[in-house]
Amino acid sequence: MRKLRLGMVGGGQGAFIGGVHRIAARIDGDWELVAGALSSDPERTRASAAELGIAADRAYGSYEEMAQAEAARADGIDAVAIVTPNHMHAGPAVAFLNAGIHVICDKPLAATMEQAEAIAEAVQRSGKHFILTHNYTGYPLMRQAREMVARGDLGAIRVVQVEYAQDWLAEETHGKQADWRVDPAKSGAGGAVGDIGTHAYNLACFVTGLEAERLAADLDAFVPGRKVDDNTQVMLRFKGGAKGALWASQVAVGNENALRLRVYGEKGGFEWAQENPNVMTFTRFGQPKQILTRAGAGATEAGLRNTRTPGGHPEGYLEGFATIYAEAAALIRGNDPDAHVPGIKEGLAGIRFIAACVESSARDAAWVTL
Amino acid sequence: MRKLRLGMVGGGQGAFIGGVHRIAARIDGDWELVAGALSSDPERTRASAAELGIAADRAYGSYEEMAQAEAARADGIDAVAIVTPNHMHAGPAVAFLNAGIHVICDKPLAATMEQAEAIAEAVQRSGKHFILTHNYTGYPLMRQAREMVARGDLGAIRVVQVEYAQDWLAEETHGKQADWRVDPAKSGAGGAVGDIGTHAYNLACFVTGLEAERLAADLDAFVPGRKVDDNTQVMLRFKGGAKGALWASQVAVGNENALRLRVYGEKGGFEWAQENPNVMTFTRFGQPKQILTRAGAGATEAGLRNTRTPGGHPEGYLEGFATIYAEAAALIRGNDPDAHVPGIKEGLAGIRFIAACVESSARDAAWVTL
Amino acid sequence: MRKLRLGMVGGGQGAFIGGVHRIAARIDGDWELVAGALSSDPERTRASAAELGIAADRAYGSYEEMAQAEAARADGIDAVAIVTPNHMHAGPAVAFLNAGIHVICDKPLAATMEQAEAIAEAVQRSGKHFILTHNYTGYPLMRQAREMVARGDLGAIRVVQVEYAQDWLAEETHGKQADWRVDPAKSGAGGAVGDIGTHAYNLACFVTGLEAERLAADLDAFVPGRKVDDNTQVMLRFKGGAKGALWASQVAVGNENALRLRVYGEKGGFEWAQENPNVMTFTRFGQPKQILTRAGAGATEAGLRNTRTPGGHPEGYLEGFATIYAEAAALIRGNDPDAHVPGIKEGLAGIRFIAACVESSARDAAWVTL
Amino acid sequence: MRKLRLGMVGGGQGAFIGGVHRIAARIDGDWELVAGALSSDPERTRASAAELGIAADRAYGSYEEMAQAEAARADGIDAVAIVTPNHMHAGPAVAFLNAGIHVICDKPLAATMEQAEAIAEAVQRSGKHFILTHNYTGYPLMRQAREMVARGDLGAIRVVQVEYAQDWLAEETHGKQADWRVDPAKSGAGGAVGDIGTHAYNLACFVTGLEAERLAADLDAFVPGRKVDDNTQVMLRFKGGAKGALWASQVAVGNENALRLRVYGEKGGFEWAQENPNVMTFTRFGQPKQILTRAGAGATEAGLRNTRTPGGHPEGYLEGFATIYAEAAALIRGNDPDAHVPGIKEGLAGIRFIAACVESSARDAAWVTL
Repeated sequence: MRKLRLGMVGGGQGAFIGGVHRIAARIDGDWELVAGALSSDPERTRASAAELGIAADRAYGSYEEMAQAEAARADGIDAVAIVTPNHMHAGPAVAFLNAGIHVICDKPLAATMEQAEAIAEAVQRSGKHFILTHNYTGYPLMRQAREMVARGDLGAIRVVQVEYAQDWLAEETHGKQADWRVDPAKSGAGGAVGDIGTHAYNLACFVTGLEAERLAADLDAFVPGRKVDDNTQVMLRFKGGAKGALWASQVAVGNENALRLRVYGEKGGFEWAQENPNVMTFTRFGQPKQILTRAGAGATEAGLRNTRTPGGHPEGYLEGFATIYAEAAALIRGNDPDAHVPGIKEGLAGIRFIAACVESSARDAAWVTL
Repeated sequence: MRKLRLGMVGGGQGAFIGGVHRIAARIDGDWELVAGALSSDPERTRASAAELGIAADRAYGSYEEMAQAEAARADGIDAVAIVTPNHMHAGPAVAFLNAGIHVICDKPLAATMEQAEAIAEAVQRSGKHFILTHNYTGYPLMRQAREMVARGDLGAIRVVQVEYAQDWLAEETHGKQADWRVDPAKSGAGGAVGDIGTHAYNLACFVTGLEAERLAADLDAFVPGRKVDDNTQVMLRFKGGAKGALWASQVAVGNENALRLRVYGEKGGFEWAQENPNVMTFTRFGQPKQILTRAGAGATEAGLRNTRTPGGHPEGYLEGFATIYAEAAALIRGNDPDAHVPGIKEGLAGIRFIAACVESSARDAAWVTL
Repeated sequence: MRKLRLGMVGGGQGAFIGGVHRIAARIDGDWELVAGALSSDPERTRASAAELGIAADRAYGSYEEMAQAEAARADGIDAVAIVTPNHMHAGPAVAFLNAGIHVICDKPLAATMEQAEAIAEAVQRSGKHFILTHNYTGYPLMRQAREMVARGDLGAIRVVQVEYAQDWLAEETHGKQADWRVDPAKSGAGGAVGDIGTHAYNLACFVTGLEAERLAADLDAFVPGRKVDDNTQVMLRFKGGAKGALWASQVAVGNENALRLRVYGEKGGFEWAQENPNVMTFTRFGQPKQILTRAGAGATEAGLRNTRTPGGHPEGYLEGFATIYAEAAALIRGNDPDAHVPGIKEGLAGIRFIAACVESSARDAAWVTL
Repeated sequence: MRKLRLGMVGGGQGAFIGGVHRIAARIDGDWELVAGALSSDPERTRASAAELGIAADRAYGSYEEMAQAEAARADGIDAVAIVTPNHMHAGPAVAFLNAGIHVICDKPLAATMEQAEAIAEAVQRSGKHFILTHNYTGYPLMRQAREMVARGDLGAIRVVQVEYAQDWLAEETHGKQADWRVDPAKSGAGGAVGDIGTHAYNLACFVTGLEAERLAADLDAFVPGRKVDDNTQVMLRFKGGAKGALWASQVAVGNENALRLRVYGEKGGFEWAQENPNVMTFTRFGQPKQILTRAGAGATEAGLRNTRTPGGHPEGYLEGFATIYAEAAALIRGNDPDAHVPGIKEGLAGIRFIAACVESSARDAAWVTL
């Protein structure tokens, strides 16, 4: 079975998430990186490509050029990974989809609703796969939690508490990662709510299978002069009556990357935290709390499916991310009808979530229908 | 120094919180229990008094009788502890205050605003001490956290996350403890929000020194047929711009008594959970997170003031509660100008908090001014 | 039912464990402190007694005088608590036993084997109760663990890991608590091994029901000039084939009072740590690990017997200690045939343990039979 | 820079550690797997090679054939990974070293001292690199801990507590992983002590820089009929006076892969556990305990050197393992004089450790000099 050929847009030297995508693509051995439009700076493009073992003639100056050239090659890329800032997703996504190339795109889907819809239209038109790297859904215990909810271990869900707390933007900060995230022209109207709130929202929906119906949100920019929110509190009402709260903050001092999900139903409840992702607690009402470990006793089929090591040998962020790439490969190869990868539907839901939060907050946290 | 004489209203056989008050009163040796109107059932009154070593002639059939008789005795009680359900606080509180006897009252202050105001008026008129047992403020690390906030260790507070999750009412439940708590005639209009939400609210305000200005609340009764909320989500706006979220639930399966407070400011943040109350994490922005232990390295004056054992020898719920009794004794003896005990002001704030939550929820979680 | 009358030897101003005993005696309401020989310093004796509400004529200058006087009173003490340094246990213990007064004595039993045997002989001769405050056996989860082992939840025990780590003696230290503990004339030949190692050893035997047969020990005094061990490592062989390791250290920087017990059998295993004593993990082989909480789901009869608050309302060190006093009261009143309090047998076992460790270490950690 | 070419001996279908090595080799992009003698079964060899994308002509029937053929090719492998059971390390290791090919070998070094010495001799003679995958040394926080010890953050080390507890062999078990591990002809004389005890021993020495001088060990085979130890307790004496205890068990019910290291010195102490490898606690004597996170605040140069993601994005077992492969590549390329990879010296130390434990235990846990 040959490796799939991957191209990359963005992710040149100095980038963070590009490197993550590359490792994720390597871990399970399904992909080889062969082409890239890695930077808008020609010099950096060249140097980055050399470092990554990309042939010089496949180190492109622009994504437009790359889409055209790769589509024309017999050994052209099977898929492209788009790892640029939010406002730079739609351009390459549409270009590659139009060129008949599958797309793996970083989240959130886009900086604006218009961009998001343009991507959705291109997905629809092209019939190509579109995978959105809401990587936290790749953690085995989140797959297991989803299966446990679906098979009724918790009964009907009543309450969802999800939060994503960081502190790296607690002060005015400059640098490649921070700059575009606090610039609404690049990040979109949402700051924390877009960058990390969408992860939290996606994960809550992924695991519970619930759809949010309405929300009320209070967005704040605590750091003086900041133009996007750095702390967002949301109340959620799901279809069917479940309630939720979502908190996203980049100013919560003492938190590195604290994505945490807690779900409570009529019969049971669980709690999970991303920073120690190999354990989750689960309680059946009236019984002792259990510590479920990745691939450990009590693991479900979905919980075992994308693990690489036995219990006690911790898998981490990169392995969860790799599962998205493994399932993208399976989708493209046509041999995994059960792949759980987030796609355009989840992408649009995220953009609607951001827009609803921004609108609600502008209207004194009034309820907004999603 | 003689022991202070304590009477008790409520707390007969089968009660929970009455026993807690009695142990709390004993721990530091300031009090002796000498009188009681322990039950509305004469037989239980007699049996309970005998069990507790209360003389037969001071085991009263009603609080009215008790207030009158004790006020008339040369060796009458110094204070009375009121440990009845919420709707039974105001009657005895007013009676004993009017009789010139100090009152220690369980929370929340009352079942209705009218009752609360009647108590407040009696406090004002009598000039007697009124102590409300928001016992969680008695934990040494909460005293320490308050001092750290006050002296600026966290800088200006931005975000407060407070929650109080239990699961004992996840199903329809009957029994002495449950019955009155889910009966609005006895508990008041608030269920979880009154029973435990007020603790969470009080603790957040106690530690941060902030005052809430407005709130929006979503109250649910998830258990079919339940007449009061068993899950409440609140967004808070504090004077000065800080934001908060409060969650109180008695249907969160897997939670026993999970009161948890997290506070984040410009310069630092801390996290504390009641179920392991001898540790708290504290982070100065950009520095490693610290684990602060009760009476351990880094303990502040306030953190050390009401501890009884060295670090590593865990104090618990009863010791925190005992501190309220120790400070009540100090107040009554007139020798503690620095006592931190919650009183009528905090009691009224709690009742306003419940009323505002109920009103907001009735108005589709609109913002209500406190 | 009248309160039992308690006297105290030692525990004057500045003492640590005396105050702990007094709170422990108060918590469950069984005792009143009415007499004491609190200090060898007459002035401190007087001041301490006044502070504690002990009548002047029962504040004695010596334990000999106290034993004689109290035995002669119609309202004399029922029991005496001995809270002096180790080398001062035997004198008062024998005196009070000979006077027909029950004894509650701090651990370890004595500073020397001769003293220990003198106490044992007096216990035997007098027929009075002798309770040794190995207070950690009073924690409800340790009672529960003992019951779980006894009823076979773990199957035959294979491995016991017990440790007790502190750091307060990591440097040369002076003060009331430190001085006698590092002086072999007062503490006995064991330092850490006697002061805390005996607690660890006692708890392991209490919970498992095992008896140690042989041990090999390596004792060190890491702080220059120290005359007793401040770090001890022991290998244990139990009757029946189980193996164990015991570590006691007072120089393990970062540990406050880290007593921890782990027991593994053919069918299950559990882990417990004193600093958060309300939880224990338990695993049946091949099943998910459970978190058992004090008085929570899965609590056994023994686990529930000496609790005062529901699950989630943490009990601590003082409550565990109080259980020893409550059971001492029950023993003396003759109404608790099931009391689990450690006594002279456990005291002698502790002294033999210290002696065996010291002997083994002196012989290059050779195996010594207990 | 071209990828290095890797061959593999062992690791065919059904193997565990072979798959781990392959992922580890892929993560940082330094290696490509091009050849293998994957199984002694020709059919499985063929199928495994096809699955792994190894060309049919480089899927060898024996390691001897493979060493000869690859050495002869212009594009022959740069290094071979040996992932067979212990008794099958020496044969291929010597063959490839003799053929001038670098060796990456799983631990422990061999099943017998003779085999170990044969490998050491071949390393010496060939001048080729020999890397032993004591992968736990690849965790960033273990690198950081080593640096902190070396620069004196803990002062002189006094006490080392290291343990490695599992439970998968708590009952008689059969299967590919279990069978050879409990067969002394394949595993060597040590069972748990060799399989996991050597990891613990290696890690303790790696981090502290200490050398063990003498040890006393008690080995048990608790499962009836088992021919090698499944539980081992060791007391260690290090050169310079530090003391240690090492516990390795495969019957400790409730433990998955619980490698844990605690080190205490004159001035500080730390604790780390492999199952949540991104955090470590560190205490300077007299100051609050700190939680140090991988790549978080307070990270040292060595702690940052081999990380791939920011703090809060957990790295796991595979990333730590990958660091060994990354450093092996750097060594082979000649551009990393600072690589920390364990090699033949550590391999021999491990075999001596096993032999000493077995000898000590046979002599009633007498002290044995290493």
